[in-house]
Formats: sequence, C-alpha cells, structure tokens
Amino acid sequence: MDFIRKTAERARETSYRLQGLPATVRNAALAAIVSELAGRRQEIVSANRIDLANAARDRLSPVLAKRLDYGDFKVDESIESVNALVRLDDPVGRVLARTELDEGLILEKVSCPIGVIGVVFESRPDALIQISTLCIKSGNAVILKGGSEASHTNKILADIITDAVTSVDGRFEGAVQTISTREEFRELLRLDDLVDLIIPRGSNELVKSVKEATRIPVLGHAAGICHVYVDAEADIEMAVKICYDAKVQYPAVCNAMETLLVHKDVAAVFLPRMAEDYVEAGVEMRGDLETRQIIDANPASDEDWSTEYNDLILSIKIVYSLEEAVNHINRYGSHHTDAIVTDNPETAKRFMDEVDSSSVLWNCSTRFADGYRYGLGAEVGISTNKTHARGPIGLEGLVIYKYRLSGRGHVVSDYVGSGAKRFTHRSLL
Amino acid sequence: MDFIRKTAERARETSYRLQGLPATVRNAALAAIVSELAGRRQEIVSANRIDLANAARDRLSPVLAKRLDYGDFKVDESIESVNALVRLDDPVGRVLARTELDEGLILEKVSCPIGVIGVVFESRPDALIQISTLCIKSGNAVILKGGSEASHTNKILADIITDAVTSVDGRFEGAVQTISTREEFRELLRLDDLVDLIIPRGSNELVKSVKEATRIPVLGHAAGICHVYVDAEADIEMAVKICYDAKVQYPAVCNAMETLLVHKDVAAVFLPRMAEDYVEAGVEMRGDLETRQIIDANPASDEDWSTEYNDLILSIKIVYSLEEAVNHINRYGSHHTDAIVTDNPETAKRFMDEVDSSSVLWNCSTRFADGYRYGLGAEVGISTNKTHARGPIGLEGLVIYKYRLSGRGHVVSDYVGSGAKRFTHRSLL
Repeated sequence: MDFIRKTAERARETSYRLQGLPATVRNAALAAIVSELAGRRQEIVSANRIDLANAARDRLSPVLAKRLDYGDFKVDESIESVNALVRLDDPVGRVLARTELDEGLILEKVSCPIGVIGVVFESRPDALIQISTLCIKSGNAVILKGGSEASHTNKILADIITDAVTSVDGRFEGAVQTISTREEFRELLRLDDLVDLIIPRGSNELVKSVKEATRIPVLGHAAGICHVYVDAEADIEMAVKICYDAKVQYPAVCNAMETLLVHKDVAAVFLPRMAEDYVEAGVEMRGDLETRQIIDANPASDEDWSTEYNDLILSIKIVYSLEEAVNHINRYGSHHTDAIVTDNPETAKRFMDEVDSSSVLWNCSTRFADGYRYGLGAEVGISTNKTHARGPIGLEGLVIYKYRLSGRGHVVSDYVGSGAKRFTHRSLL
Repeated sequence: MDFIRKTAERARETSYRLQGLPATVRNAALAAIVSELAGRRQEIVSANRIDLANAARDRLSPVLAKRLDYGDFKVDESIESVNALVRLDDPVGRVLARTELDEGLILEKVSCPIGVIGVVFESRPDALIQISTLCIKSGNAVILKGGSEASHTNKILADIITDAVTSVDGRFEGAVQTISTREEFRELLRLDDLVDLIIPRGSNELVKSVKEATRIPVLGHAAGICHVYVDAEADIEMAVKICYDAKVQYPAVCNAMETLLVHKDVAAVFLPRMAEDYVEAGVEMRGDLETRQIIDANPASDEDWSTEYNDLILSIKIVYSLEEAVNHINRYGSHHTDAIVTDNPETAKRFMDEVDSSSVLWNCSTRFADGYRYGLGAEVGISTNKTHARGPIGLEGLVIYKYRLSGRGHVVSDYVGSGAKRFTHRSLL
C-alpha cells in the first residue's frame, strides 16, 4: 500500500502551499467548481444513471438506492450550497488574540488550516462535493473515499473539482484526491504522521469502526441517544408539544429523542395525555414498570436505555429527582443532545451544567441541534468529542491556530537575571 | 486491572459534579491547598528526604536527583504558583457566542471543563501540584501517575491536595486520584470511553510512548527540532544576536534551536562572524559541505537534520531560497517553533504562512515560545497537535464548550413546510 502513503505525502506537501492562499483564491476555486458543475451537468447525470442501473441490477435496498440518486435537482442543490459557502466569512487568518509582549515584540494567535483531512462517506455523492468544498474554503487538503456503489458519480465529481480548482491556481494540485477501497482507507487511518483529522460521514457503524482503527483524531458521533426530561415543574402542554416534536417530527436522525424521562410527580397527568398523541402517530412505547402502571406500553429492558432506535419507538422511564435524570442521561446517553422541560430556571441551570452533552436544551425540542438551525452557515458534522470541536461543527472545526511572533531582534537573555527587561503583556485586541 | 477502570469511573462520576461548581468554590479549593501546603511543610520536606536518600542509595544520576529535590524553596514556589492561579480569570462559563435563533429561542456556546484528564509525569514532584491545580481551576477530574523515585513526596502531596479540596466541598471527592505503576497507566490509556485527554509531562520518549499506546487525545510534543532561517535580506548583527540566544541561552529545552539554515547570499559574511561567538560559547557545529567551505565544522549527516540535541550542538545548512528553507523545516522539523531573520516583510509573511509550526517567529529568538513569555498566565504544556490546542497551552487547553439552547416550547415542526416560521440567526454578542 505504498501508494496510499504517497497520496498522503502529496496531500501533506500541498497542505503547506494551501496555508498561504488568500481567501480570494480559495473563493475563486469554489466559483470555478460551480461553473464546472453547471457546465458538465450531463456527464454527471449520465454517470449517476450507471450507478443507479447497477444498484437496480444488484438489488440494492430502496433506501440506499434513493441516497445514491444524484440527478439534475441534486446538482442544483450542490451548486447552491457551494455558492453559499463562497459568501461565508473566511475561517482562515482570523486574529484570535494580539498581545504586546514588550515594545516591538508583538504576538498574534491566528486561525489557520489544519492540514490534511481524510474523509470516508457512504452512498450520497453530494457528500463528496460538500466535504471537499468545505476543505477548500478552509485551506485544507483532503483525501476522499466514497462508497463503491456510487463509484461512477464520485469519479466524475472528483474530476470536476480537481479540474476546476487547478485551473484557478496550480497550488491546488493535490488538494483533492480520492482513494477507492476500504483496505486503502484502512491504510490511510494508520498514517497519523501525515493525516491530521478524519471525518467519517455515514452510519454509526462506520464512525465506530473508523474510531477503533485509528489514532488520528476523528470528528463525528457514533450514536445519538437523546433524552427529554419532563421535570416536576414542567408546563404539561409544553412538554407534550416538545416530546411529540422530538420523537415524531423526523425519527430517523441522530438528534431525535430515544428515551423520555418523566418525574414521578407529573407522570400521572403527563403520560396519559402524551401517550394519546404517540398512539395516534404510531409510536411504539416501551416503559419501565412504573410507566406501565400509568399507561399501556411494552416493557423496556435494560438494553432499551442504550439503544438508538432511529424509528418510531420510544423508551420511557419514571425518575424521582433531577439527579436521577441527570445520572441516567450521563450513564446511558451518547453525550449528543438532551433537553429538560421545566418552569424552574434553577433546575434548568443545574440540568444544563451537569448533563455532559454537546447540546443541552431547555424548553425546546432536541431536533434543533444541527448546524443549519444553529446558524453556522455550513455543517461539517456533529461531534460528541470532548476536545477540539463539539456539537454541530461549522467551518471553525476545520481550522486550528498558530502563534506568530514578530520582533526587532528581541532575545530571551535580555529578560533573564538582574536588571532584566520586563514583559508588558498588554492585550492589543 | 479492574480497579483502574473503577478509578476512571469514579473520576468520570466526579467530573459531572465538577461541571456545575462555581469559580468561587474552585478558587476556595485552591486557597485550601495553599494553606495545607504551608501547614504541612515539614511532612513534605521529610518525605522528600526519604526519596532523595533512596535516590542516593540507588545511584540515580545527579540530573534526575536534582529534579527530585522538593525542599522548602520548592514548596514556596508551588504556593506562589497556586496563588497566581487563583487570580487568573475563570476559564469555565465563558460565553463564546450568543445567537437568537428566533424570538425567545436563544443559543449560547459556553466554555466548560473537558471532563477526565490522565496525567503522567517524571521525577519533578512540583508537576503534581501544578497539573492538579490547573485541573481544579478548570473543573476537571484528574488521575495522576508520578515517577516511582518520587513516590514518598508524591504521596504526601496528593494527600494534601485531596484533604484540602474535599474539606472545601464534598463534590471534589474523587477529583484528584493517583495510580502507581507504569502498567496501571498503560491500562488507563486503554480507557478511551472514560478518559478524555492525556497529558504526559517529561521526556520526548515518554510522550512518544504514550502517543503510541492510546487512542485518547494526547496534549504534548514528542520533539522540539526548532530552526532559525537567516534570509538573504537579514540584518547580520541581528541574526548573530538571535542565533546566539536561540542556541546558547538555554540549550536543554524544547524551544532551543537545533538547526540553522543560512541563505547562500549571506553565508560568507554571516557564518564566520557567527562561528566566532559559537566557538567562544563551546558550541559544536556540524555543517553541510557548503557550510564547511566557509567555516570550520564537523560534517553533518542526514540524521543530524532530524536530531534534537538539547545540548550545545548545532547543525548548519546553506539553502538557496526561502522555499528550500521552508521545505526543509516542514520536512525535518517537529512543527514546534521556527524563526526567520529578514528585513523583508513579504518574505517574513510567506515564511510564517507556509511553515507549519505551532509558533512561527520573525526577527526574534525561538526561546520566546512558552506560556509564561506569551503571557498565558499558566502553562499546561506545549502542543504540536493540529487539533484542539496548539503551541504553548494555557488553561483554555483544559476546557471545551457546550451549546445551551433555551426556548419557550419551541419545536422544529413549526419551521418546516409552507407558512413555516423562519430563523432570525441574530448575533447577540
């Protein structure tokens, strides 16, 4: 697998050149991608038809086949999203801090690209466009591996992007590269001396297997086991509305509620009212013993508390205190998104302090936790990591910073010993 | 090693409680440590004498034995550093962004503790005080493993810290724990479900071995191969002053220069002048062929370019362009700290853009790259990572953020479809 190391080394070399590219050049590259996508639309649609035909021949499941579809409408969506990306503020070159260490000795902390990003994604060809343009906007080199069932579509999209960006500036040579097989990506995951960050886009199983196979930081979440806790002091009508939205509005996604925790003091009032709406929506309820003494539900086993259904199924548990709710969430949850419904601001504060999740919500639906709704402009992914970037990640997840120190011949020996010069450490921002 | 998992689980439980502790309580805990250190000074010094006696008996090298010394003077230093930490701004609870998503639906991005930090350190017992107080200040639970040669000193210091913090607030129970052996720490490195960050404090070999043994993010640097590049347009006197300081002022540290790169146009003027000062300071010079045609030096092998001497030894290479200098640094360096000496601001900018190091310096000595000189107040360490925290790391390296969203019964279904409500995404900061 020597050529995978060569691919990564090429990306690394390119990444150094990309560090110095101004925003105008990076945005011009994105604009060129838009033109190329529009101009070669027919090629794309034809390539996608081959993938779709192969999928039909291989009897791919309808869900997967639908994800594979990249027709005229999807091309338009991609063009629109790249145009939106051009308009976003530049994430690179932001001065995060400026300090005078001494007269004429100025320290700046400036945002800069991370370097080399490895991306693996399943089915959806639009992920290729989205991730590679996010990387170009943020000055990173990217190595992509798509699903084999989308190979024809992915190939033409990668060609389009490469042609477009290198036509704008030769320094983009090697900025977007693709690899083909799972084994090749496994090899890439070993190259922690050359690859700085891995972004897996796809199923929880994919994310989990990537995390287990690498020492490179992985940006993502392996599960979305989200909770709503209905407190003793909850507004019951509000709780019903939020719990309905969190479970029913779009159950297949990571920020949908999987477990409902109800304080015992309101359970007898809240649960029958809530169950009515759930029954109407076709939600299967699985409750602990006390829940089942109040409403009709299947029994919940211990396994249910750590299951992400991604479906119209909900586990329900009665708790006796805020503390019990918090402990349950921290123990069984996935540190993704959890909500409380309460009229008591102090209870809400304690919940939001102590629940160790990337998003903690008060009196609103878990479904709000995503990059678009949070107003981030572009979403790189949702992370449950505890370092670097957490929660819905915008472009700032693809940059880090470096320190730039400028002097006039300053040396450390002048600041040591008796009669030494002293630092001023004056903030200039 | 079941008890290591138990230790980590206890730290994890504690970390949830620490999330909610206000700064007043965390600072009171630090103040209690100061009192306890002062009050139990005799116990500390006696314990340290045992370690020193054992070191003498076991013929520990004088360098290691010196690091082990934790007498009256060191206790005072620790007390002073903890007092300084109390005065620092709280890293927790900072509102990094505040956005109105819609009327009454307010999103805050707020800094918070990371959770559970694992720390391994060699010899110096003051590292125990320093790291555990940094963790307390930032609301993290910490698990520490010190060197066996300092076991008596470490034991009493850990006891003092635990007694002090738990006397202030019972929620600190389990906030500072210690483990004893290398095997136990190896086991801890496997618990990526319970430990969020590892900080190794010690030799490059220690850092490297830790990085290789874990999937948990590691904050640190495994090498400090720093460069100074003397450009064609350098002020020669300034270059001599900076290169002297970068190599001679304190050669044993990670931010000292290991390789000097000189543009061929100034080599004949600069090198003889520079060599004079180096010879006087006892610096062994190892040059490439062209260097040795100008000054007296030992031959440098390819290995020299990637060697961290930490000593009065310097490798010297003549380069023909800025590009060659940048490529050499990115290829052989450790992405730690690199400097350029030039009077040309555009050359400096290109160097600082394209050199992929945590600190890039212009017309000043590499030795400035540390937390104290950068004015960070406290230094957690220096990181060459490309994600989370880079360069000299202050308390902000021990925190992450969470999103807090507060509504009044807001649900996502109101924002979907025709006639839907629209997000305002108005920044409130």
